[in-house]
Amino acid sequence: MLRIGIIGASGYTGVELARILSTHPDCELCVVTSRQYAGQPLATVFPSLRKRVDLLCENPDLNSLVNKADFFFTAVPHKTAMKIVPTLLTAGKKVVDLSADFRIRNAAVYEKWYQPHSCPELLDRAVYGLPELYREKIAGQDLVANPGCYPTSVILGLAPLLTNRLIRPESLIIDSKSGTSGAGRSASLATLFCEVTDGFRAYKVGGTHRHIPEMEQELGLLAGQDVTISFTPHLLPISRGILSTMYATLATEASLEQIRDLYSQQYEREPFVRLCGTEELPATQHVRGSNCCDIGIQLDERTGRIIVLAAIDNIAKGAAGQAVQNMNLMMGFSETTGLMGAPFFP
Amino acid sequence: MLRIGIIGASGYTGVELARILSTHPDCELCVVTSRQYAGQPLATVFPSLRKRVDLLCENPDLNSLVNKADFFFTAVPHKTAMKIVPTLLTAGKKVVDLSADFRIRNAAVYEKWYQPHSCPELLDRAVYGLPELYREKIAGQDLVANPGCYPTSVILGLAPLLTNRLIRPESLIIDSKSGTSGAGRSASLATLFCEVTDGFRAYKVGGTHRHIPEMEQELGLLAGQDVTISFTPHLLPISRGILSTMYATLATEASLEQIRDLYSQQYEREPFVRLCGTEELPATQHVRGSNCCDIGIQLDERTGRIIVLAAIDNIAKGAAGQAVQNMNLMMGFSETTGLMGAPFFP
Amino acid sequence: MLRIGIIGASGYTGVELARILSTHPDCELCVVTSRQYAGQPLATVFPSLRKRVDLLCENPDLNSLVNKADFFFTAVPHKTAMKIVPTLLTAGKKVVDLSADFRIRNAAVYEKWYQPHSCPELLDRAVYGLPELYREKIAGQDLVANPGCYPTSVILGLAPLLTNRLIRPESLIIDSKSGTSGAGRSASLATLFCEVTDGFRAYKVGGTHRHIPEMEQELGLLAGQDVTISFTPHLLPISRGILSTMYATLATEASLEQIRDLYSQQYEREPFVRLCGTEELPATQHVRGSNCCDIGIQLDERTGRIIVLAAIDNIAKGAAGQAVQNMNLMMGFSETTGLMGAPFFP
Amino acid sequence: MLRIGIIGASGYTGVELARILSTHPDCELCVVTSRQYAGQPLATVFPSLRKRVDLLCENPDLNSLVNKADFFFTAVPHKTAMKIVPTLLTAGKKVVDLSADFRIRNAAVYEKWYQPHSCPELLDRAVYGLPELYREKIAGQDLVANPGCYPTSVILGLAPLLTNRLIRPESLIIDSKSGTSGAGRSASLATLFCEVTDGFRAYKVGGTHRHIPEMEQELGLLAGQDVTISFTPHLLPISRGILSTMYATLATEASLEQIRDLYSQQYEREPFVRLCGTEELPATQHVRGSNCCDIGIQLDERTGRIIVLAAIDNIAKGAAGQAVQNMNLMMGFSETTGLMGAPFFP
Repeated sequence: MLRIGIIGASGYTGVELARILSTHPDCELCVVTSRQYAGQPLATVFPSLRKRVDLLCENPDLNSLVNKADFFFTAVPHKTAMKIVPTLLTAGKKVVDLSADFRIRNAAVYEKWYQPHSCPELLDRAVYGLPELYREKIAGQDLVANPGCYPTSVILGLAPLLTNRLIRPESLIIDSKSGTSGAGRSASLATLFCEVTDGFRAYKVGGTHRHIPEMEQELGLLAGQDVTISFTPHLLPISRGILSTMYATLATEASLEQIRDLYSQQYEREPFVRLCGTEELPATQHVRGSNCCDIGIQLDERTGRIIVLAAIDNIAKGAAGQAVQNMNLMMGFSETTGLMGAPFFP
Repeated sequence: MLRIGIIGASGYTGVELARILSTHPDCELCVVTSRQYAGQPLATVFPSLRKRVDLLCENPDLNSLVNKADFFFTAVPHKTAMKIVPTLLTAGKKVVDLSADFRIRNAAVYEKWYQPHSCPELLDRAVYGLPELYREKIAGQDLVANPGCYPTSVILGLAPLLTNRLIRPESLIIDSKSGTSGAGRSASLATLFCEVTDGFRAYKVGGTHRHIPEMEQELGLLAGQDVTISFTPHLLPISRGILSTMYATLATEASLEQIRDLYSQQYEREPFVRLCGTEELPATQHVRGSNCCDIGIQLDERTGRIIVLAAIDNIAKGAAGQAVQNMNLMMGFSETTGLMGAPFFP
Repeated sequence: MLRIGIIGASGYTGVELARILSTHPDCELCVVTSRQYAGQPLATVFPSLRKRVDLLCENPDLNSLVNKADFFFTAVPHKTAMKIVPTLLTAGKKVVDLSADFRIRNAAVYEKWYQPHSCPELLDRAVYGLPELYREKIAGQDLVANPGCYPTSVILGLAPLLTNRLIRPESLIIDSKSGTSGAGRSASLATLFCEVTDGFRAYKVGGTHRHIPEMEQELGLLAGQDVTISFTPHLLPISRGILSTMYATLATEASLEQIRDLYSQQYEREPFVRLCGTEELPATQHVRGSNCCDIGIQLDERTGRIIVLAAIDNIAKGAAGQAVQNMNLMMGFSETTGLMGAPFFP
Repeated sequence: MLRIGIIGASGYTGVELARILSTHPDCELCVVTSRQYAGQPLATVFPSLRKRVDLLCENPDLNSLVNKADFFFTAVPHKTAMKIVPTLLTAGKKVVDLSADFRIRNAAVYEKWYQPHSCPELLDRAVYGLPELYREKIAGQDLVANPGCYPTSVILGLAPLLTNRLIRPESLIIDSKSGTSGAGRSASLATLFCEVTDGFRAYKVGGTHRHIPEMEQELGLLAGQDVTISFTPHLLPISRGILSTMYATLATEASLEQIRDLYSQQYEREPFVRLCGTEELPATQHVRGSNCCDIGIQLDERTGRIIVLAAIDNIAKGAAGQAVQNMNLMMGFSETTGLMGAPFFP
């Protein structure tokens, strides 16, 4: 049994990791940390875990933690992660980092959107943990940068178009909508129930969201050229779920059928990517609680634009689920272990 | 007191009309029709109206109705409206029609998106009832075509850009999200609570929604040229509210400040259009239950695109509220009578 | 025009007061206070008030405030209210206090459930502001204690039963459910969107909620004897609304028809209390945004118990709406002025 | 691998059964029926099942079905179930029936609340499938009547009190609140999104809900005497979840600690029953998507009443999850197989 530690277990990603790992047959959750709840049972912080996870939260003291587990998920904010990860690696541990700190390959780009990086030498070592693209690289790694939630939906949704040079990259407009769990579990006025429910709004409009460089990096690699996108995130009055609606101008003549065939070729055998039928469209409620990414495609013949829609659960495939998928690959477990549960609907 | 009739009072637009009119000082609601609930008090169909509206639903028999009111709101489906409206006009009544039947000025366009039109001669007579654009024309009219909900948000949001030739019309991409009341009050699987709540999805993707020709007509008039848009509607798990996120490429160099000034010039004195501050963005929960349209603007300097966001309550400014605003203009009442209530938040 | 001040305008009760007063024909809102947002427009704190309320929040400095208005609503926490109200009264102002500080007539009872009272001499002077019971007393007053939200639903629901000695008071069990706006607008983990949505729970179980002494006081006065109740509050995943389900054993034989007649006698002419028909039951969505209290009654012949259900909007009839109703009475305005708007549905 | 059939797979219980069974290691789902969707993939009816369940819906023709599976879940309405179950049993199949048809042991009682019973001789043979009470009896059975959703929460919540004679049964008042999935998946006005969201109401008030005889039967067996309850169901604006708040007068002096000890004795080793700590209360969001039943207990010393709260997921422990738990017992599998997933939170 692989001994697992979660650094930063008291957020929504933490509880989802604990939920998934609690029934994973090859793992044992051995240590969870939370500065705020140190000394309390994790099942007191999250009553959903009663009788399922029997661990006390510990202070994130690396010296004492490092020997309690062999594999760590770091679910802490960016900047904090880069302080912890080097120590874990030095101790010979494997790490999936769920922050942004190791996602950007170019330190200058990272520093432009975030802040100075304290261990840029690790950026080359880290693999971007989108298994559907980088499965082989992930397999041999000890440091995987788990993708952001928005980028997961966007990159999976656009990969076949870019790889096959079907669209003009500069035409890309991405209108994404996320559930409120993406905003984290800190008490704040903006995410109070009464401020969010029965409402809808955009935020960080105008090219300022920090997931943009991550998306542009990966879309650029797929396109074989620099890509600059328009990206607008919105806040949905739901807990879990992202739907990204993506618009692009076709670069070449192609029928919807031809395009769908390319998607099929790329994703047919993927256990977690599901193409919608011609009459179907993805919906967040159909991926809820699962590691699935559902993709739908339509062509607007009036404007020559293709519209791709991709739905994921932001804390599952968009965070904790994908992190476990990466762990499975890193450890040589079957990639789908512990992750094949169907979405819960309704 | 103006005697009012509502043809088709048992839908969500009907109950909102009844709510607004119940406190309008210059009107008396005298007749409401509903085939399904004929003979029942409207306050049984909508318990919210208890002790506020004391009328029985009647069968929509025009002969008996026509003398009971002087002003009619027709809140029936398209195709049904075009059968009713001519009779009302012939009887000398004034009409605000909330269906699509008189919105499209070109009969051929109407017939392409809908079905044959039985009284195309009325299309010229009808005025498109967006008061912020057509206030003067509405004032003298007896037939006003109340705009669709999506078009209201989109046209108000884009008017200053198009009038001032600031954007390239062919670059317009409109990503709209609507509350579920827009889907009507008929029992259907797709709008059951458990199918909609805690979820989000698009529908009619790829240039097929019937509000497109209405938007293209009005945007084209503003732009002084044909306009073809990409439009994608989505279904929000809220009752009321539309947020439209609109993307366009600037046609000329302009600073955000300059653009905001143009919006201010056009909308400063409008009682129902409210510009968000530079640090603010519109949200459906801040217009809920009101006749307001909130507009926010941001520039993405990385891509040269402008992003406009417009929020309305789809059954108020997007339907019943705007209809009463039109009635006020048609009857020479103060335009804001009965409509100045602030949104209810939370 | 009566000049109005709201002390504590940045909570949900504050914004609802501002919304109602913004269209009240006999009042002008002249001053609003908020320690946290001093110097900011109230319409920045609550964008719903854009173009409807044009006031800056001020620090609650009584010396400077007291001359800016003639009538004050104190919407501050208990304990804070008792420090402010005496000053306002001394300056000759009239006050509706929305806290608990002047609701309990017996200082000892107040001090048992809350804390020491700093001006117990005012308890006699204050009138409990439930207009349906104390209309005449309120009319001549300068200090009215606005009832709690739960008590409003419970007292209106039970009054006819107790006045007519139809039930055994010691059998009373009250199971209440409230929307989350009742928990206030402070950032807190427990009321984050993701903690509340798609969920339901009880709180303060076992006779510990501070509205209990207020209910027992008023129910006791109606019953003419001491009343001790079981009361359990619950948190609903909605913004606005309270539904109280009340159980009592009949003290005497009475048919449902007889009981309904007594309710009709008491409430028929009340503008804000609405009895449901025999086949109907109250629902929070049918009173949303209004000053209405809807009441339904059923008899369980198997157990000899009567079940009364009462629905209100907790921040309207349960707070701000009732406060304006009290102001109307205190000032000699028509009791319903500004309050006759029908509920918002859907 | 046990071959499984689901008769009536297109309801919310059906999709939850399919979800659970899709990862059950000892079962293979072989046949699903739906009159309405015959010929369509179940994954088209429920897109959540894409790439997880690969079966076409079949017409419920028993002759052709009966050989395709060894174990059947009948998830059809009462009255329909009693027509199907005898045929399945005669063919040597094992059955968990999720309708009400075999829950009531006394045919006369069944016929009073429902309609004539066509196979009353099976009532003795059927075991009431609440494993925490009847584990041994279920183990040897071929027909198990799966309990209703409300009764599951109520019986588990009250069992220790009744078994230990701690309360006066005639004092029992049960105020239950259920998510909307309990109302089924048929298109109906009453369960449209806009009618349910942001609202709350009671239904079937006054002792008329058909789960009452089922609860009284089982509570009576536990109490060793006839039990008559007051029961009021309510509709919550959530998909999944029941919270039952139960009031009873203590029959004997007992401290909260003593009572909690009795609950611990009964439930400590139960994998699916979880007692809340002294400072905790159950919440539906903490059992969502799981087979757990969370129970909290408080004493109201002011009134001598005990208040028990029990939370379940109505379509998991209240239907599909418990049905699989019963299947596990009937087949000799480990009782918890496929059911140990922690609740989904948030």
